Parts: sequence; C-alpha cells; structure tokens
Amino acid sequence: MTEQAPAVAAPELSVSQWLNTPEPLTLAALRGRPVLLHAFQMLCPACVSHGTPQTERAHRMFRNTDLQVIGLHTVFEHHAAMTPVALEAFVHENKLTFPIGIDTAGGDGPIPVTMARYGMRGTPTLILIRRDGSIHHHGFGPQDDMAVGAMVAAMLADF
Amino acid sequence: MTEQAPAVAAPELSVSQWLNTPEPLTLAALRGRPVLLHAFQMLCPACVSHGTPQTERAHRMFRNTDLQVIGLHTVFEHHAAMTPVALEAFVHENKLTFPIGIDTAGGDGPIPVTMARYGMRGTPTLILIRRDGSIHHHGFGPQDDMAVGAMVAAMLADF
Amino acid sequence: MTEQAPAVAAPELSVSQWLNTPEPLTLAALRGRPVLLHAFQMLCPACVSHGTPQTERAHRMFRNTDLQVIGLHTVFEHHAAMTPVALEAFVHENKLTFPIGIDTAGGDGPIPVTMARYGMRGTPTLILIRRDGSIHHHGFGPQDDMAVGAMVAAMLADF
Amino acid sequence: MTEQAPAVAAPELSVSQWLNTPEPLTLAALRGRPVLLHAFQMLCPACVSHGTPQTERAHRMFRNTDLQVIGLHTVFEHHAAMTPVALEAFVHENKLTFPIGIDTAGGDGPIPVTMARYGMRGTPTLILIRRDGSIHHHGFGPQDDMAVGAMVAAMLADF
Repeated sequence: MTEQAPAVAAPELSVSQWLNTPEPLTLAALRGRPVLLHAFQMLCPACVSHGTPQTERAHRMFRNTDLQVIGLHTVFEHHAAMTPVALEAFVHENKLTFPIGIDTAGGDGPIPVTMARYGMRGTPTLILIRRDGSIHHHGFGPQDDMAVGAMVAAMLADF
Repeated sequence: MTEQAPAVAAPELSVSQWLNTPEPLTLAALRGRPVLLHAFQMLCPACVSHGTPQTERAHRMFRNTDLQVIGLHTVFEHHAAMTPVALEAFVHENKLTFPIGIDTAGGDGPIPVTMARYGMRGTPTLILIRRDGSIHHHGFGPQDDMAVGAMVAAMLADF
Repeated sequence: MTEQAPAVAAPELSVSQWLNTPEPLTLAALRGRPVLLHAFQMLCPACVSHGTPQTERAHRMFRNTDLQVIGLHTVFEHHAAMTPVALEAFVHENKLTFPIGIDTAGGDGPIPVTMARYGMRGTPTLILIRRDGSIHHHGFGPQDDMAVGAMVAAMLADF
Repeated sequence: MTEQAPAVAAPELSVSQWLNTPEPLTLAALRGRPVLLHAFQMLCPACVSHGTPQTERAHRMFRNTDLQVIGLHTVFEHHAAMTPVALEAFVHENKLTFPIGIDTAGGDGPIPVTMARYGMRGTPTLILIRRDGSIHHHGFGPQDDMAVGAMVAAMLADF
C-alpha cells in the first residue's frame, strides 16, 4: 500500500534561544500533533495589537487538546532594539505563556534562518502545520479569530 | 446491533414566518447537516453589537460547507415594538443574509414556542446542532469568535 | 453699538412627542445654553453602534455643566417599524437617559419636519448649537469622541 | 494689585535626549501655551494600545492651535530593554510624530527624574498644564477620549 507524500512539508525550526519552555521544541519531535506557529516581532504594531494576543488566546483555548502553540521571534529589522533581553521584558509585560523561540540570525542578511526557510513575507505570519508535518495554512497579516478557530479544529479532527 | 441515542436531541423549530429563504426550514429535513441556530431579539443590545453580526460572519465564512446557519427571532419582551415589519427593516438595514425564522408566539405568556422548548434563558443564545440532531453547544450571552469557529469545524468534521 | 447676527441660526425643533423629559424642550427656551443635538434612527446601524452611545456618554460627562443634550428621532425610512412604541423599547433596552424628541412627520414626504429645516443628509447627524443660538457644527456620520469633547468644551467656554 | 499663585506648579522636565524635535523643549519656554504631557514606556501594554496612539491623535487634532504635545519616556522597569535605540525603533514603527523626551535616569533608583518630580504612580500618565504653568489634570491609567478633548479645549479657551 502506498502513502501519499504531503504537498508541502513544513521546514524545521532554527532557534537560538527559547522562552517559556523547559526544553527546546522541534517539529520533528512534534510529528503527530498539530502545530500553530506565530511569527512576530515585538515592535511590529499589528503583532502587538492583534496576532500575539490572538496566539495567547489560542494557547489557552486549546490547552486541553494536543495542539502545540509556538511563537517565533523573527527579527528582520531594528535588530539593535529587539534583543533577547528586550523580548523577555515584552513577554513579561504582555503575560505571554506559550513557548517562544528566537529565530536564528541569518548569516549574511537581516532575515533570520527559519523566516527564510518558510519564505515569510513579514510579520505577523501564521503557519498551521498538520499532524503529518505538512503546511495547512500560511497567512501573512492579521488573521480572523473565527477562521483560526475553525482551521485549528479541522487539524485537531484530522487523524 | 444497537445504536446509542443522542444525549440531548434538539427540539424542532416552530416558526410563524420566514425571511431570507424561499422555503421553510425544519431540523428534521436538515438531519445529516450541522446547524448553527442564533436566537436573538432585534432590540437586544448584545445581539445587535455582537451575536447577530457574528452569525452573519459565520454564514459567510462557512458558505462552502454544508453548515446551515439559522436566525430565530425569539421575542419575549416589547412585543409591540419587535413586529415582523420591524424585523424586516432591521434585517435590511443590517444587511443580514442568513435565513431567519420568527419564533411562534406563545399561547399563554410572553415566551415564544421554540424558546420554551429549548429552555433558553434569554438573548442572544447560540445553539449548535450536530449532524445526528443532538445538541453540541447551548450558550447564553456573547460567544467568543475563536470558540465558535472551533466548535463549528468540529461538527463539520464529525461524520 | 451694533451686534453682529449669528452666521447661521439653528432652526427651532418640531417635535410630536418627548421621552425622558417631564416637559417639552425648545431651542428658544434654551437660548443662553449650548446644545448638543443628536439626530438618529433606532434602526440605523451607525447610530446604534456609535452615535447614540456617544451621545449618552456626552450627556453623563457634561451633566455638571449647562450643556443640554437632546436626541431627535428623525425617521425618514421604515416608518412602520420605527414607531413611538418601538422607540420606547429601544430607549429602555439601551438605557438612554437624555431627552429624546420624535421629529414631527412631514406632510407630503418621508422626511420629518426638523430634519428638513436643518437640511440633514441622513443619520446619525450631530448638530452643536452655541449659547447665542447659532450653529457651531453640523456633522453627518460618525463623529470622533475627542473632537466632540473639544467642540462641546469650546462652546461651554464661550460666554 | 495681587495675583494669586497657581495651586500646583508643574515641575520642569529633565530630559537626557529628544526625538521628533530639532530643539529641546522646556516648560519655562512654553509658558503661555497649554501643554499635554504623555508619560509612557514602550513596553507598557496600556500605553501601546491606548495612551500613545491617543496622544498622536491629539497631536494631529490640535495642530492648528497653540497646544504643545510632549511624550516623555519614563523608564522605571526593564531598563536594559527600553534603551534609546529601542525607543527610536518603536517611534518609527508606530509612526509617532510628536516630540518625545527621554526622562533622565534617576541617580539612585529605578525611577527617572521627571517622573519622581511629578510623583507619577506609573504609566501611562497624562498631565495637562495650563498656560500659567499650573497643573490642570494628572491622570494615571487610560484616559477617556472625550474627556481629553474637553480638557484640552478648556485649557485652550483659558487666557
């Protein structure tokens, strides 16, 4: 019996430092569970006002499911301002409780490694990854609450 | 082989007049499809500001699925104000496009028939009904967008 | 010594019925006090969501000044729906406490008398009237809170 | 003839660096003009969501008056995160155009100099200063738009 390969496999994360988690997370280890990945910058207004609080609400709403919510700090501008210590203060002030990884700085340019792997156009970006590791949704800009709830539930129901 | 009865079966609707639909709707005929039932009054502030526009958004978001969205005008107060002609003007002004039934007036009291059958506590009330006709959710008061999206998607995925 | 006439004098109100006031109000009797006049329809979505609650907040914020806040129900469409009894229910449900007059029905057309006198383009309309009876502001559509606060205070300070 | 002293004189600002202004500002030089002083921290959620955008709107709304709007970055926590370079990025991303001073760091504690002089309880704080240099309003926490508009207009009308 043959098994069809997923249309687009989600690239692995490259993270230089983690917050809000005792151990590093990898998509490989999360295979079998759906993942909500919120890429943001702490000084991006649409992230602060919409995407990041939405992600915190999703983290709380689906805490009794096997969804894994992950934040990814994809700094591609103002690098001197959005340092790890600044991110820690931001996370504290905004009472964020989901695991957050700092995207590894790019070798020869402003774009960090994971952001480049996914071809993200900016922040906020929402990536939803199915249990089989394929990309279910890749959305740039503010995402509608009802649509996010529906897409996550569809991934949860898909075994 | 035995089949387990649904925990709580959704009572049938009793409607005296329909808007936005060429033919009357019944839950019996909708068996096999999930249903979102939004009970409201056109002069209920929390309906106007939250529940009714949320229902319109759900109607549009899930239009390519087999979800059936239904509004139910459950007038239990200010009967002289919330007449059918007033409801028609309200529907027109608020650009509502989902089917809306007027709950049949109660025989000996202010509570209309369907509202009484469901034991609704007031408006807005959101009732979600599974494909098998059982009640998935019965919520009084404003309902969170993300939760509504997730619950509808869960019903859609349940065959 | 000569006195300059006001640029545009506010026409008198024509009201067929009053709510929330023991006695009818007239601009003539209010001369010497600034007036905030909010023209609305109970089924106008931008009134319900913005203009009417803004007027209630202004009524409460300036209650210790001599500003007179007045609502005017200028029904120019859906006359069969927006009846006096329907308005009373609307006022009750939305907990409105400022005086509201029902604009006198027009003789030969849908536009009521006061609305026609002022040349209002629709609802909501905000009219601000100075102590000397002249029009300070005539705005159609949603009005910014900060601007309304500033204009009212400017009228209050103008003796 | 005697002149009554203002009830509470606004203390002078102590600023280590200015943004959005070619020259430093002092309350002494602004005597005769009303001043709106918005004390904030770039990582304070209630500042980012409410107080700081409100201040930008006030700056634009009253640009044809002689009101002077001033932002004051009163860092009293997370000093390593809210550096001048981080503030510059924040100002750029949020498109702030009003003059902003960085409150001079305190000698022996986390509270900066101007914040201590005014006895501010936290951020955001709104201080309104009359033409005569006296304090008209000192408010901690989110301030209502309509009230801010009214208070500013009252100061503008007071000669």
